[in-house]
This record gives sequence, structure tokens and C-alpha cells, in this order.
Amino acid sequence: MPDPLINTTSDIAVRPVLKRAGRVVMVAVAGGDAIGAERLAELVLTHEGIPGDRHAGFLRPADVRVPWFERNAPIHNERQVSIVSMEDLAVIAGNLGVERVEPEWLGANLAVGGVPDFSFLPRGSRLFFPSGAVLAVMGQNDPCRIAGAEVERHLIGQEGLALRFAAAAKRLRGVVATVDRPGSIRSGETFKLRVPEQWIWQG
Amino acid sequence: MPDPLINTTSDIAVRPVLKRAGRVVMVAVAGGDAIGAERLAELVLTHEGIPGDRHAGFLRPADVRVPWFERNAPIHNERQVSIVSMEDLAVIAGNLGVERVEPEWLGANLAVGGVPDFSFLPRGSRLFFPSGAVLAVMGQNDPCRIAGAEVERHLIGQEGLALRFAAAAKRLRGVVATVDRPGSIRSGETFKLRVPEQWIWQG
Repeated sequence: MPDPLINTTSDIAVRPVLKRAGRVVMVAVAGGDAIGAERLAELVLTHEGIPGDRHAGFLRPADVRVPWFERNAPIHNERQVSIVSMEDLAVIAGNLGVERVEPEWLGANLAVGGVPDFSFLPRGSRLFFPSGAVLAVMGQNDPCRIAGAEVERHLIGQEGLALRFAAAAKRLRGVVATVDRPGSIRSGETFKLRVPEQWIWQG
Repeated sequence: MPDPLINTTSDIAVRPVLKRAGRVVMVAVAGGDAIGAERLAELVLTHEGIPGDRHAGFLRPADVRVPWFERNAPIHNERQVSIVSMEDLAVIAGNLGVERVEPEWLGANLAVGGVPDFSFLPRGSRLFFPSGAVLAVMGQNDPCRIAGAEVERHLIGQEGLALRFAAAAKRLRGVVATVDRPGSIRSGETFKLRVPEQWIWQG
């Protein structure tokens, strides 16, 4: 049953806050220049992201995802942490006709389970971990050919995957997040999820 | 006519990116401890916000708006810049039965015009100014009694406004934003607005 809507002074219907939970399946750090990440037992987070990860920092250089900025111009870093879901990865694998796509092939820092439509989690959603660490979702991640090449490298005999990856992974590639509160995240633990009020702006 | 929806592999309907424009009516800096802001001809922005404004910084202390954090714990600062619309302020004034509510009474750094339902602009919306400055919308601003007291202080003979303000300004109090790209913003200039894809997560 859909949630009741909140009445507002405008014509915009507001959906109330939702509270859910999920579990951490894997944590990894993307330390090198290549896209792949390395699995760890525990991920340590500061306000700038994951120390040693190439996405750490309050700022990042603009890339092809934000074509309205001059390339490499320093911008607010909304990509400190990359999170995918096991369910979405299974759909990507199905779309590609392969047995599996592992989260670290895509450079993900976290793989989670138990949250439906994970890649559609709205901006402003927050994940609360047992240590006190809190991540804030900043937006859907976009697939790219670099990740596709890494998937192809791991699946010998599946030439052409790199080119097919972007289409197969569209809107399934997880989300990017910033660190609201530092702490640590361990593989196997559960987290709480808070999804903020939602509405559609018509403009 | 509503925009056509984008089909996805899930059941979630995605509304496409929208491009609009607006104009800057006022810019101001909130330098002191009180909520009010001081009008300027030009606002200068760095990656940390507005130098000299009490909301500047990559981090901010947690307050009553984020009750899931310990009070004053340092969190990611999504409130570097506060933006209201003249249209929303006129509705607030009507709700209060007063002639006007000025943006600087509420501590706004920017007042804009020409964008309908401004306070409902989705997270991730971006405002592009002629200097190259870019602001990223981080969420709706919540009214508080402190702002109400400031409104009452400016409207002699209107006792009780402070208590009525929060209800009168609910979902009309504008948005908070972070600085994606530094630059300056001048009163009277126009800006371009990009609203990202929108959808409702059902969970």
C-alpha cells in the first residue's frame, strides 16, 4: 500500500520519510589508479572519505559526468564513497549474460544487500552504521566504459563486455555518498536507512 | 503538459532533466551571531561558502534539524548558502497577515525570483551564475522560531508572530546549498537552473 501523502500549500504531494535496514556484504578501498578496489575486513571513514582511496577529499576534479564544468576544475566532492547492491549486480550480470559481477571490479567501496531498487535511493538518504559512521547519498552513479573494461578483464573469453557494460549497468550502478559522520564499517554488519521526504518538482 | 517519463528496468518512472532560469533579487552575508543578514551588492563564494558568513566551512556542528546526530558533532556542511524566493516570501507574509517578509530577516544569503515552487527544488539542482559560480541544492530549509523572532522584531505591533512563523513558513523557507564552483553573485543578474532527473523511491 502506498504511503499517505502529506498536504502542502502548493500542489506538490510530499511522501513521508521512510525507514528501512540493510546489511553490508563487502567493504573495499580503491587505492590505485586502476578502477578496481581491494576487499578489506573493515573500512575506516573520515570526513574526507576513505584515507588512501583515490576519491578521498572535500574537493574533486570535474570529470565527464559533470560536463557543465571545465574538465579537472575543483568541485565539491559528492563521490567520496561508492556503494552498490548485490541485487543490482545480479541484474547487471543477467543483462550481460555472465555468472557474476563482483563489486570490487567496479571499484565499489561498499556492497550492500536487502534494500530494493538500491540504485534509486534518493539524494539525502542516510545510512547509519553500528560504529556511528553515517553516509549521505549524493546521487546515482553512472556506468562508464572503464568499469566495463575491468569487468571484461575478470571474465576471460567474454570479449565485448566492456562496450556492453554501460547499457547493462544503467541505473543499476549504485550510488555515491559523502561522509556525514566518521567511523568504521565492517563486512557482515547491518545498517539503518533513512530516506527523506520525496516529491516531484514540476517547474 | 507533463514531461514524458523515461523507462527503466525497474518499475520506477524517471522524469527527465529540466532547464529553467531565474533572477537574483538580493544577496547578503550573515556575519554575526544573530540570524539577520546584511545586504551587499555582490556576494563572493569560495569552496567553503561565503567568507565571513557564520555558515562557511566544509563541516558544521549538528543542530536540531538533524536529531539523529549528537548535538554539535561536526557533520558534512550542507548549509553553506541559504536561498529563498520572493514568491515564497510573499506567501509567508500572506499567511502571517503582514505586508512583507524581507529575505535578510531570515538570514538568507540569496533571494531569487522567477522559479515556481522554489522551496521544492530537488536536491542536486544546480544554479549557474554569470561569474562561473555554481551552487548545488542540498535540501529544503526548515523554519525555526529564531527566524520568527527576527521577523517579529522588524514588524512592530505584531506580537505573537514568532510563534506563528514556523507554521506560516513551512515548505516556503527556501533551500540550502553548497558551493560547487567559486565565483561571485551580483544582485540583479540572471542565473540558469538545472534540475536533475527525478523519481519516487517506493522501498
